[in-house]
Amino acid sequence: MAEGGRTAAVMAAIQGRIAARGLAPGERLPSIRGLATALGVSPSTVVEAYERLAAEGVVRSRPGSGFYAASPAPPTLAEIGPRLDRAVDPLWVSRQSLDGEPEIPKPGCGWLPAAWMPVAALRRAARGLARAEDAVLTDYGATRGPLPLRRLLARQCAGEGLAVGPDQVLLTGSGTQAIDLICRLLVRPGDTVLVDDPCYFNFQALLRAHRAKVVGVPYTEAGPDPELFAQAAATHRPRLYVTNSALHNPTGATLAPAVAHRLLNAAAAHDVRIVEDDIFAPFEPEPSPRLAALDGLERVIRIGSFSKTLSASIRCGYVVAKAEWIEALIDLQVATSFGGVSPVAAELVAGALGDGQYRKHLDALRRRLDRARREAAERLAGLGIRPWLMPRGGFYLWCTLPGDRDAAAVARAALREGVVLAPGDVFSVSHTAGSRMRFNVAQMGDARVIPILERALAVPEA
Amino acid sequence: MAEGGRTAAVMAAIQGRIAARGLAPGERLPSIRGLATALGVSPSTVVEAYERLAAEGVVRSRPGSGFYAASPAPPTLAEIGPRLDRAVDPLWVSRQSLDGEPEIPKPGCGWLPAAWMPVAALRRAARGLARAEDAVLTDYGATRGPLPLRRLLARQCAGEGLAVGPDQVLLTGSGTQAIDLICRLLVRPGDTVLVDDPCYFNFQALLRAHRAKVVGVPYTEAGPDPELFAQAAATHRPRLYVTNSALHNPTGATLAPAVAHRLLNAAAAHDVRIVEDDIFAPFEPEPSPRLAALDGLERVIRIGSFSKTLSASIRCGYVVAKAEWIEALIDLQVATSFGGVSPVAAELVAGALGDGQYRKHLDALRRRLDRARREAAERLAGLGIRPWLMPRGGFYLWCTLPGDRDAAAVARAALREGVVLAPGDVFSVSHTAGSRMRFNVAQMGDARVIPILERALAVPEA
Repeated sequence: MAEGGRTAAVMAAIQGRIAARGLAPGERLPSIRGLATALGVSPSTVVEAYERLAAEGVVRSRPGSGFYAASPAPPTLAEIGPRLDRAVDPLWVSRQSLDGEPEIPKPGCGWLPAAWMPVAALRRAARGLARAEDAVLTDYGATRGPLPLRRLLARQCAGEGLAVGPDQVLLTGSGTQAIDLICRLLVRPGDTVLVDDPCYFNFQALLRAHRAKVVGVPYTEAGPDPELFAQAAATHRPRLYVTNSALHNPTGATLAPAVAHRLLNAAAAHDVRIVEDDIFAPFEPEPSPRLAALDGLERVIRIGSFSKTLSASIRCGYVVAKAEWIEALIDLQVATSFGGVSPVAAELVAGALGDGQYRKHLDALRRRLDRARREAAERLAGLGIRPWLMPRGGFYLWCTLPGDRDAAAVARAALREGVVLAPGDVFSVSHTAGSRMRFNVAQMGDARVIPILERALAVPEA
Repeated sequence: MAEGGRTAAVMAAIQGRIAARGLAPGERLPSIRGLATALGVSPSTVVEAYERLAAEGVVRSRPGSGFYAASPAPPTLAEIGPRLDRAVDPLWVSRQSLDGEPEIPKPGCGWLPAAWMPVAALRRAARGLARAEDAVLTDYGATRGPLPLRRLLARQCAGEGLAVGPDQVLLTGSGTQAIDLICRLLVRPGDTVLVDDPCYFNFQALLRAHRAKVVGVPYTEAGPDPELFAQAAATHRPRLYVTNSALHNPTGATLAPAVAHRLLNAAAAHDVRIVEDDIFAPFEPEPSPRLAALDGLERVIRIGSFSKTLSASIRCGYVVAKAEWIEALIDLQVATSFGGVSPVAAELVAGALGDGQYRKHLDALRRRLDRARREAAERLAGLGIRPWLMPRGGFYLWCTLPGDRDAAAVARAALREGVVLAPGDVFSVSHTAGSRMRFNVAQMGDARVIPILERALAVPEA
């Protein structure tokens, strides 16, 4: 074997041991003479190999003290899961939408324009905060969050046929944080979690952060395919299923009663817990079936937040679940964020929700969204972009691009012109939505959107 | 073997298989006839065993379809780690302090009374919020948090000899959430993490939530014992060391320069990353050595928050770290709480920090705490309770009870009279602080505290 080959062999041997954790980070490498003898090579070959490994950062040399295994750089979240074209990475749309310049159009984002939010009510709530008790402004809050807001949410649940006491409501730092806490409680690394395919892209990023195995269930116009859901539950024995039933994200579809019933039976048969993220419920013209209400919180945990209807800036979400789970979630929330929701945030939310104008605001919002949905559908139709279905409410249109164009390529082209889009595959665990695109009809008022979209569609495929 | 014994044997066999995951949750139990033959018992014995297991909730019977392994109830955080007397469970003090009635004295808690906080500045900040741009009140914020506040924190770091740009500052939902994000990035279940013994009790709860192996390093009046730190680093190959160097919690001790230097060398030798929680730094009369500044953020990550000096109700913390780690932390924060810090919270913090009165408030706070510390030490001395050392600042006194009284028993007795104390062992990984107690000198103004403490000390040991 040539000298170079021998050196490479020594390097491979060491790298193998480090990869197999046979050499822990910081551990001293075998002595040069010892390894040379063991591998039947010359000491100089081992020295050469160690020095090349040091140059590659695989090992570290400490003058006078020898060579040590370096610790690998911590994996990024993208590396935890399969590496993806950043344009179809679930985090891509989040980062672009959150960090993009405020004035650029973002039909790919998941929120309403500031002008559509109840700003006057929020300013009144802020002035109310300035007059609140000292403790509200200065102290940690109760671990469940303030009772008045929990009472209000419990009454809201009762109105939807879900009878709960305020102690079954836990306020959290956001809807996403609520799901994160539930994953800490119910999901171990390597556990399987079911999601809809397509589903809200951040469900994938969140579950990836928990090192869960994510399995998608094909979504139909009436909800997840109940047959395939039962199959997936039987095959993969998932710990959890995460979904939003009211105005499903991204499709805007509505769960049909018969599908809900079959889902719950399959979940019971295979002991799958369910997180029902109800964040879009306030946008429904009339309530659709709720898994939490049908199940009575036996295995369903209901999640909500105010980010879509009130403010995404005041971070506040909530969990509604059976009492023993709430207790365990409180411990986890104390351990990981000390205390619960920000009392200041809860005060602002309660103030704005209690504001006489809030109901009116929601009604106006629904009417405004109906108009925007029709207009957006017409303008998209002009480009040959057609919705998969016409949602009953909310602000999403899940569309098919003409001629099966590659949505990721279109999104990249549009971004170069300063428009953030949401290509279909970021929502699809199976990456079978490559020519789909989610449009936020409330973010398409900007005159630049349609022309830029038209040009992006015209860019020849790579 | 008697019938009862045979039934018990069958039950044990099934429970064993479930425990060993030989029977996954939801999986069907062996057929009654089959198992009867296999175990050489009568089918009726198996039926009896299955029904008892169903009664115990270990298995579930589905009419007409047989018996299935039930899924275990999710483990509570207390169960993840070793089960502890709740009174010395790290979460005990948190829950008692956070959920105890507002008016009861809490010398065991970790914050200042509302009356000591800059309430006027906070009210001004709230009125400022009412006049903020619409987007501040309604929208998700940039993933790093607003630039002005990050610039302010970067300047503050520079003032402490830590040269960083604003892009190396990441705002988070709280100081604890900052450490939680770092654990998500750097700690895997089963990894070892070093903490001080004693240390802030919630470090243990947080690390337990990450399923880390927590190893304590004995803490001296000059910081962690550097010899034992190096030994622990060599023996346990920890991924991380979590500490607070400025006014250490609970001891109030200060890290000595020579110890800091030796710590960093040992950490480098064994490639240990360090989280330096600087939350008490503003209470120092003059700055003490900072690991982050000495190390230049090579392996040290600096954490801070405003909960102790400004408001614990406005949840806002921050991370200062090397650029590539910040990038990875942003992805994790987006995935697990969508977006970063609440823009409303950041606006309130920036408003109050920018308030001309804030510096004066800190100076007054330090003087007031010096007085309170002297007074508390005198009153405790009257009960034979002596501080381990007299801290340079901050609000903690780490004390020894007279006659080695059991601090947990004293805390339980005091709680019966409505006073929340912090018994030593909640801070001690090795549970070697059984007769120690942490007192918050700012929370001892209430006339009930000393008499109740005296009575609690007089309660005969169980």
